[in-house]
Amino acid sequence: MTSQSEQPKKVKVPEPTLRRLPWYLSNVRLLNKKGVEYVSSTQISKQINIDASKVAKDLSYVNIAGRTRVGYHAETMIRVLEEFLGFSTEHKAFLFGVGSLGGALLSDSGLNQFGLKIVGAFDVDPAKVGTTINDIPIYHTDEFEERMKQAKVNIGVLTVPIEIAQDITDRIVGGGIQALWNFTPVRIRVPEDIVVQNTSLYAHLAVMFNRLGFNEK
Amino acid sequence: MTSQSEQPKKVKVPEPTLRRLPWYLSNVRLLNKKGVEYVSSTQISKQINIDASKVAKDLSYVNIAGRTRVGYHAETMIRVLEEFLGFSTEHKAFLFGVGSLGGALLSDSGLNQFGLKIVGAFDVDPAKVGTTINDIPIYHTDEFEERMKQAKVNIGVLTVPIEIAQDITDRIVGGGIQALWNFTPVRIRVPEDIVVQNTSLYAHLAVMFNRLGFNEK
Repeated sequence: MTSQSEQPKKVKVPEPTLRRLPWYLSNVRLLNKKGVEYVSSTQISKQINIDASKVAKDLSYVNIAGRTRVGYHAETMIRVLEEFLGFSTEHKAFLFGVGSLGGALLSDSGLNQFGLKIVGAFDVDPAKVGTTINDIPIYHTDEFEERMKQAKVNIGVLTVPIEIAQDITDRIVGGGIQALWNFTPVRIRVPEDIVVQNTSLYAHLAVMFNRLGFNEK
Repeated sequence: MTSQSEQPKKVKVPEPTLRRLPWYLSNVRLLNKKGVEYVSSTQISKQINIDASKVAKDLSYVNIAGRTRVGYHAETMIRVLEEFLGFSTEHKAFLFGVGSLGGALLSDSGLNQFGLKIVGAFDVDPAKVGTTINDIPIYHTDEFEERMKQAKVNIGVLTVPIEIAQDITDRIVGGGIQALWNFTPVRIRVPEDIVVQNTSLYAHLAVMFNRLGFNEK
């Protein structure tokens, strides 16, 4: 999408690292709020109970220099991590399916602070089309292709019923969306170059219920 | 917690299996809605693009008998999987922190259908205490210990600001909560017998943003 060949070469950071980095970010934020100016990977490691060498390895993907015996400058680290994780860039998204979960995600302004800006939602329910939630307009699904031409959106948030998850996925991808945040419990099929991130709240519930039952035995 | 020694022995099912089983469940539901009466693990495997032997292995944890050449009876499989995953049992929960995400989760009635019933929420904001969201009452955090004595609740949903995540965790655990569904980007520390399920929407965003940037290179 970009033509700036001067851009630093992007590295494919391992997914586990990408999932741990927000923990470090929160941790440094907490320490910084308590007045800590410099943090070391050992400090982070102790706080969140992850091996110090793993923390150091994870941080090696991020372009941030620490000083021997002093550690990383906390404020710089927060800024660099936010940038690295994409939280300080605005990523526009459309949401598909304004049911219970879809509506809930539209009301969650917290996502904004982490770089996800939902600029519109789609549904077929006449009672919803034309209204807004949290100032986000809800359009009829038929308008999707037209709206895509007007707005530069490359993320789709999928919260439709399971029966139409694959059909809507095909349509979204056909319209030019490049990444799908899939909240449905369906394993959707997409072309190879499309990014899919599955967040199945129900799968997490299943794990929790099972472990709870196991402890209760 | 239970004294029924006749209960079937519980097996510690691997977490990846527990995360995949809801996929199979959705898939069988979809097939069943299309009129399919019997499904095989090969069929599921093809639909969701997971190795058939893995599907069969995963299903071996569940007490469901298939018939050679015919496969599993779809309706029975749906019922058995729902039961196995805990979706057909009501698990009572309290939610802590009625901010943007907490409020959103309270409005998501979908969780109910998967066995999670949030029966109350806690916050310190005078504007919120005493009100309800989606018929769920919001109490002052100070009332937690008292409310715990009245209601048999063993799950806590954690959606508080990061600054107080650990303090509230300690308090929740002290009050008798046995499982925590942690939506904060903080890695909370708990005693060994407490179940923690981390659902960090922000970590998922980070992975998606990174992969998107990688494709755009």
